[in-house]
Amino acid sequence: MQEGADWHTWPTYDAAELGFRDHWYPTIWAHQVGEKPVPVTVCGEKIVLVRDGDVVRGLHDRCPHRGVPLSLGRRQFPGTISCPYHGWTYGLSDGALRAVITDGPDSPICGRVSVATYPVVERMGLLFVWIGTLAEGEEPPPVERDIPAELNDNAFVLGGRTEIRKGNWRFAAENGFDEGHAKYLHNTALWRLFKVMPTWNLTRIVERDGWLIRVQDEVHWDAEFPGVGRFTNKRWWKRAPLPDRPGKNGDANPVIAALDLPGFVSIRLPGILRVAYPQFIHYEWYVPVDADHVRYVQLMVRFETGAKALAFKARYLAAIRWLFHGQFTAQDAWMVDVMDSPPERLYRPDLSLTAWRRHVEKSDLVVQPTAPRRGH
Amino acid sequence: MQEGADWHTWPTYDAAELGFRDHWYPTIWAHQVGEKPVPVTVCGEKIVLVRDGDVVRGLHDRCPHRGVPLSLGRRQFPGTISCPYHGWTYGLSDGALRAVITDGPDSPICGRVSVATYPVVERMGLLFVWIGTLAEGEEPPPVERDIPAELNDNAFVLGGRTEIRKGNWRFAAENGFDEGHAKYLHNTALWRLFKVMPTWNLTRIVERDGWLIRVQDEVHWDAEFPGVGRFTNKRWWKRAPLPDRPGKNGDANPVIAALDLPGFVSIRLPGILRVAYPQFIHYEWYVPVDADHVRYVQLMVRFETGAKALAFKARYLAAIRWLFHGQFTAQDAWMVDVMDSPPERLYRPDLSLTAWRRHVEKSDLVVQPTAPRRGH
Amino acid sequence: MQEGADWHTWPTYDAAELGFRDHWYPTIWAHQVGEKPVPVTVCGEKIVLVRDGDVVRGLHDRCPHRGVPLSLGRRQFPGTISCPYHGWTYGLSDGALRAVITDGPDSPICGRVSVATYPVVERMGLLFVWIGTLAEGEEPPPVERDIPAELNDNAFVLGGRTEIRKGNWRFAAENGFDEGHAKYLHNTALWRLFKVMPTWNLTRIVERDGWLIRVQDEVHWDAEFPGVGRFTNKRWWKRAPLPDRPGKNGDANPVIAALDLPGFVSIRLPGILRVAYPQFIHYEWYVPVDADHVRYVQLMVRFETGAKALAFKARYLAAIRWLFHGQFTAQDAWMVDVMDSPPERLYRPDLSLTAWRRHVEKSDLVVQPTAPRRGH
Repeated sequence: MQEGADWHTWPTYDAAELGFRDHWYPTIWAHQVGEKPVPVTVCGEKIVLVRDGDVVRGLHDRCPHRGVPLSLGRRQFPGTISCPYHGWTYGLSDGALRAVITDGPDSPICGRVSVATYPVVERMGLLFVWIGTLAEGEEPPPVERDIPAELNDNAFVLGGRTEIRKGNWRFAAENGFDEGHAKYLHNTALWRLFKVMPTWNLTRIVERDGWLIRVQDEVHWDAEFPGVGRFTNKRWWKRAPLPDRPGKNGDANPVIAALDLPGFVSIRLPGILRVAYPQFIHYEWYVPVDADHVRYVQLMVRFETGAKALAFKARYLAAIRWLFHGQFTAQDAWMVDVMDSPPERLYRPDLSLTAWRRHVEKSDLVVQPTAPRRGH
Repeated sequence: MQEGADWHTWPTYDAAELGFRDHWYPTIWAHQVGEKPVPVTVCGEKIVLVRDGDVVRGLHDRCPHRGVPLSLGRRQFPGTISCPYHGWTYGLSDGALRAVITDGPDSPICGRVSVATYPVVERMGLLFVWIGTLAEGEEPPPVERDIPAELNDNAFVLGGRTEIRKGNWRFAAENGFDEGHAKYLHNTALWRLFKVMPTWNLTRIVERDGWLIRVQDEVHWDAEFPGVGRFTNKRWWKRAPLPDRPGKNGDANPVIAALDLPGFVSIRLPGILRVAYPQFIHYEWYVPVDADHVRYVQLMVRFETGAKALAFKARYLAAIRWLFHGQFTAQDAWMVDVMDSPPERLYRPDLSLTAWRRHVEKSDLVVQPTAPRRGH
Repeated sequence: MQEGADWHTWPTYDAAELGFRDHWYPTIWAHQVGEKPVPVTVCGEKIVLVRDGDVVRGLHDRCPHRGVPLSLGRRQFPGTISCPYHGWTYGLSDGALRAVITDGPDSPICGRVSVATYPVVERMGLLFVWIGTLAEGEEPPPVERDIPAELNDNAFVLGGRTEIRKGNWRFAAENGFDEGHAKYLHNTALWRLFKVMPTWNLTRIVERDGWLIRVQDEVHWDAEFPGVGRFTNKRWWKRAPLPDRPGKNGDANPVIAALDLPGFVSIRLPGILRVAYPQFIHYEWYVPVDADHVRYVQLMVRFETGAKALAFKARYLAAIRWLFHGQFTAQDAWMVDVMDSPPERLYRPDLSLTAWRRHVEKSDLVVQPTAPRRGH
C-alpha cells in the first residue's frame, strides 16, 4: 500500500466517520426549542429535542410502534410527547410509554416499551447532548468534562453560530487545526484586511492538559520562491503582527494570559478548536451529523462582564459575526466541502494533522458505529 | 430474531413489495386517455394506455428495438401506435409489429416481434388493468371478480380521486385497515368536525366472503389515563355517535342494509378497503406502483339514481371531495410516507394488521417479482 | 443467452462505457478559457484547462495533497496554478510542484510531486485533449490523425456548437450513424421542411480510409404498408431529392466532389460522424464524459474563403445553428436520452450499427477503464 493511499495508519480515526461515543456534543440554541419539538442528528443518531418546562429533553426520534418520528408528535399531556399516529405517549424524562390513547387506560403494552433517552443540558445557551452508553441508573460525566476548562471557571460574554455544513466532521476538524492553509486560503478574507499573516512557519505541536497546541518556532512574513516569485501578506496599511503567544500581549486579557498558552491554536477531543487572541478566544466544535455533514458551532468569547462585555457583544453582532463567523469560516466550509481525501500526499506543515490523528489513536475512544440505528 | 424485528413471520407479504400478479388493478380515469398515449406503472410494470376508438388498450411501454418508450410514440395509422424513433408500428389489440416504416413494406421483421399487451377494461369510469400471466388464447377472469360485489350488482352514483402517493402499497393498506390510528390521527380532521369519534375500542376481526371485517365489541367514548390525563373526542356541538353496524341505522340505504355488515370497515385482496356509512360507502384501492409509491384510488358511492344521486354528486363535489378525499386522507398519506417499519412493536389494536397479513399468507397468491422487467 | 439480450457479441464495445484511450478529443472552444481555469471531464477523467499565454494547458484537476480541484485555484505566478487551499503551485507545462507557498522556499516536497498533464492543442477553435498513456518523453501522435483529412488539408469556414447532453456516448454515436431513424424521427424537423426525405432505403456499408460509409442501393420515396397505410415525406412544396452521392451534384463544392464519397453519411473512430451535403459538410464528435453524458460537438463546414465564406458564416448564424444544430439534433438528443438498450431487437437497417460495432471490435483499441481515477 502506497503511503497516503488510505488512512489505515490511523485505524480508529479511519473508522470514526460518525465520531466517538461517550461524549457531550453541542447542538442548537436552547431558545430554538419552544412548543414544537425539534429533530437533530448527532453522530448519526436521530434525536428529538422537546421542551419540558425549564429543561429540554432528548428522545430517540422514532416511535417503536411503526417507526413514525416523534418530532412530528403532539404535546398534549404535561411532561409527555405523543406519537401523531396512534397516540403512543412517552414520558419525556425517562422515555417510558405512559399511555396509549387508542388502546385505553388498561393497555397491556404500557410500561413494557420505552424509547431511548439522551441526556441534555444547557450551557452557554447551547443544548449539549450526551451520545454514549450508560448502565442502568448510571449518570453521564458532567458536561464540564467536554467543555474547555476556562469556560467553566470564568465569567464571560459570547456570540456564536450553530449550523450544519457539508463534509465529514474529520475534514472540518483537520481544516481547523491545519497549520498550513490559513495563511494562503484566508489571504483574501476581509477579517484579515488590517492584520498581516505570515507566509510560512516552522511549527511544533505540544500536548498539554488534553490539548494539542501549535507552537511557532519560526515565523516568516515573506518569501521568495525561486523561479516562481515573491509572496507576502504584508501591506502598508496592515497592523504589525501579533506576538507569538496570545498571553504575551501588553494588554492581554488576564484570563487568557493566565492560560499561558505557548501558541494561538489548539485542539482537543472530541473535536474542539480554540483560537486564542490576546483579548478574546474563538472556539469551534465539529459535531458529526452524518457521513457527509458536520454541525459547526462557533463561539467568540470575551472574559469580561459589565460594560466591556456589552461592548464586545455589540462588536460581535456588528462585525465579528459577519467577518469571522461568516465570510472567513465560509472559506473553510468551501474547502471542507470540496476536499476528497485519502488518497493524500502530506507535507511538512501537516504535522499538525498527523499529531491530531495520532492523538486520536492513542486516546481510549469508542467509535460510533456507522450502521443505521433504527430500533434499540 | 426478536419479535417485530422484520416480517419473516409473513414471508409472502414480506416479498410482495410490488403486490400480487393475476389481479385487476384500477389506474387512471378513462377520460384521461385522449389522443395522447398515457404511461402508467402498475406493480412495477411500465404500461402505455392508448385510446383505440371506444376502448383503451394497454401495451408494454418499451419498443423492443432500442428500448424507447412507446408512450412517446405517434398515432399515425388507425389501430396502431408507432415508436417515434424508427416507426416500428404495433397493433393496439395484439401488440404485434404490423409495419416498420423505415424498413419498407417487405420488412422481414414484421410479424416476428410483438410487445406484451395488458387487458384493460373500463369500470366506474376507471381503467382497470390486468397484471398477470395468461396462456396463449387464455382470457383473464372477469374484472367483476376484483370489484366488490355490491358495485357489480347495483345502480349507484360516485365521486372519486386517483393519484400517486409516497410509500409502499402495504403501508397504505395497513393504514387503511388499521383499527387504532383513526381516532387519534384524524382527531383534528375537518371531516370529523361534527361527528364524534371513540377514544378506544375492543375489536374483533371476522372473515366473510373474502372480506376481513372489523367488529367493535366495545366502544369507549372517553378515557382517563392514570398520571397522564383525560382524552375524548366528544364536543358539545358534535352529533351523537353512529350505531355499531352500518345497516342498523333507521334511515340506512337498503343496499347497504342488505349487506348486513357486522362492522364499518373491511378489507379484501388485492388491497381494497370498504368503509360503510349508513347512506354511502367509501372504497379505496392500494395499487402498487413501485417500491416507494402507491396509486391511491378513492371512491365514494351512493346507491341511488335520479334526484338523490344528483344531490349526492353535488355534495361530493362541494364537500366530500375536499374534506374526506382531500384533507382527511392526506393525514393518512402523511403517515404512510413517514412510517418506517419493520422493526415494529405491535399493540393490541394491531390485530387488524396481523389478521390482514395472515389473510395474505393463507391466500393462494403469486407475488410480483421485484427485478425490473425490461424485455419479455 | 438470447440474441440481443446484451452486447456480449461486441466485448470491446460493451466495455467501452467511457470510450477509448490514446485519442484526441475535442472539448470546449479555446476562447472559453480566459483568466479563470475551466474544468472538463473527458472519458471520465477530470481535467482543468488553464490558459498559459497563447496556449492552453491541461492538468489533472485534483491537488494530490488533499484532493481539492485545481480548477478552483489561483493564477498568481506566471506559468503556474496554485491550489487555493495551501498554495501548492504547479508548473502548467509539466505539472511539477514548483513551490509550496505555505511551506517556504526550502519546502522538501518541491520537485517530488506532480500532477498528470494532458496534451492540449487548438484546432478549428476547439481545444483537443489527448487521453492516453505516454512513456517518459514520448509525444502523442499529431492531432491531425484524429481529425478528418479534408479538414487538415483545405481552407474552410465553420460554425459549430459544443455542449454536454444526456446519454452514453455509444448511444449518441449509434444514433448518428443509424440508417433508419432519420427519415421517421426527423420527419417533423423544420430543417427538412423544404427537402423531401425517403421512406425507406436498401443500404450497404463500405469501409474506406478508416471510414464506414453508408451507400444507398435503393431509395424509396413512398410506400404502402398493407393493412396499415401509406407513408411518404413528399409534399408539393418540397424540393426534389438530392442525388445519391454528395459529389454528384452539378454545383457540388470541389473539395467535397474530390472526396468522391459513395454516400452521404460516414463514421470513424473514436466517434466522428460526417454528413456530406453537396456544398457543405456537417461533422459531429461524440466525446465520452461519464457513463451517462456525452459531449456533443457539432461543426458545419464550408470549404470556401472570402465572400462565400462570409455568406456561409452568416447563413450558419441566421439559420443552420438553430434549425440543424438546434431543433433537428435536439430530436436526436431526446432519443439518446430515453433509449435503453440492451436488450435490443435489431432490424435490417441496423446493419449500420452492427458494422460500426464490428469495426470497433476489429480495431486495436484500448478501452478506458471505468473505475474512478483519483490519484495517479
